[in-house]
Amino acid sequence: MPGAASLTLIALEGIGPVAPGDDLAARILVAAEGAGLALADGDVLAVTQKIVSKSENRYAVLDEVMPSPRALELARTCRQDARVVELVLAESRTVLRAVPEVLVVEDRRGLVLANAGVDRSNVEPDARGRERALLLPLDPDASAARLRARIFELSGADVGVLINDSIGRAWRLGTIGTAIGVSGLPGLLDLRGAPDLHGRALQTTEVGLADELAAAASAVMGQAGEGRPVVLIRGARLPRRDGSARELQRSRERDLFR
Amino acid sequence: MPGAASLTLIALEGIGPVAPGDDLAARILVAAEGAGLALADGDVLAVTQKIVSKSENRYAVLDEVMPSPRALELARTCRQDARVVELVLAESRTVLRAVPEVLVVEDRRGLVLANAGVDRSNVEPDARGRERALLLPLDPDASAARLRARIFELSGADVGVLINDSIGRAWRLGTIGTAIGVSGLPGLLDLRGAPDLHGRALQTTEVGLADELAAAASAVMGQAGEGRPVVLIRGARLPRRDGSARELQRSRERDLFR
Repeated sequence: MPGAASLTLIALEGIGPVAPGDDLAARILVAAEGAGLALADGDVLAVTQKIVSKSENRYAVLDEVMPSPRALELARTCRQDARVVELVLAESRTVLRAVPEVLVVEDRRGLVLANAGVDRSNVEPDARGRERALLLPLDPDASAARLRARIFELSGADVGVLINDSIGRAWRLGTIGTAIGVSGLPGLLDLRGAPDLHGRALQTTEVGLADELAAAASAVMGQAGEGRPVVLIRGARLPRRDGSARELQRSRERDLFR
Repeated sequence: MPGAASLTLIALEGIGPVAPGDDLAARILVAAEGAGLALADGDVLAVTQKIVSKSENRYAVLDEVMPSPRALELARTCRQDARVVELVLAESRTVLRAVPEVLVVEDRRGLVLANAGVDRSNVEPDARGRERALLLPLDPDASAARLRARIFELSGADVGVLINDSIGRAWRLGTIGTAIGVSGLPGLLDLRGAPDLHGRALQTTEVGLADELAAAASAVMGQAGEGRPVVLIRGARLPRRDGSARELQRSRERDLFR
């Protein structure tokens, strides 16, 4: 039976600032040990995109970015830094909406989000004091899989890993934690054909399970970003299918609102 | 500091089938007591829409519904039961998309969702064996406020209440738990102007906090619907502002994807 009768989410303290090349798995295991927690099979680790990107050196120095004419024009429309817009375009397949203060794209990963996730908050300048932006991991599902494999290598625990980011939505205000990378758990739970309590087929047929867990983790991480970048989720009792965040992406063909 | 360093979600067992007029607050308190849990100030109760609607007698008997010409036409387009489509139209302000198997509306509450939340799964027939559908509560924020007040009356505990439903999304597959009614906690957390760890203004400025908690609760409830319809969320350490689910609704004017 998928789901859980109880769920505990614990922020792992003391992960500290993350730099390119850092071994996140080792840091997570030290933090868990410091909290008296031994990772166990079936645990899920939610890790904020920001520290994954930092460990993967996904920085761009803004002064080294040369905005194209298109970026300059979009920057005027959106009232944004043209160098950032140039980075956004390089990360995107399609610009979906561009109005003052808002630039929504379908990014190279298939995610629909503002600014392709290119972020300047909680991003420190480089050693020469130059401003930087941080890009999403190139392939967040692969990042999650690597982190999961490394945790298994170091600890023997077969955990699930999800990489989450705070993403805005059509129709509703406020960002919510969303799974952009998944390994070792299903992204999407397919309940088609499952009966309800009265034997009728369930009306809800697909559940964005990894997104629900990412949202839950985000409520624990808070918004200070690096303050609580890793959350241990215990008790999820998930089907052990090795899914992906990609399976949560609605294809352009199935999307009536793109 | 909003957010929490740990969060526990516990499904309350033994709520049982709910009928019109049932006192949900009393049922919840009995279930909590049975689990050895005393509700405390700052706890949040997530309650599935379905049992709130049942307690409020939001049933419609399908054979008593007379589809309008417009409902008949939309039913052909969407390949749905014309009586259900008639109920959907009566619950809606605007039809946003109508294609085979999909009818997305802006409902009378301002929610954008499939079928205005009109649901036939986990809905028992009436005493004469006639099929019924279940509609959303007329005013879910008011339902949440009533439930909260009644829990305070019976127990003295000042809890937050959120009513959640599984709702689909643009751009992404799968439904996720979403807050359609909120009382005693913020719907939306406004962080505009809050500094990041490096003194820059945060890029993410509004967080759909109640939606994050609703998604978390949904992961615990599972999809069997009434099996685990109430989840106690403990440790959220929220700002105690009395918000609403309405504040999570993006107005038509601010929505680029409607």
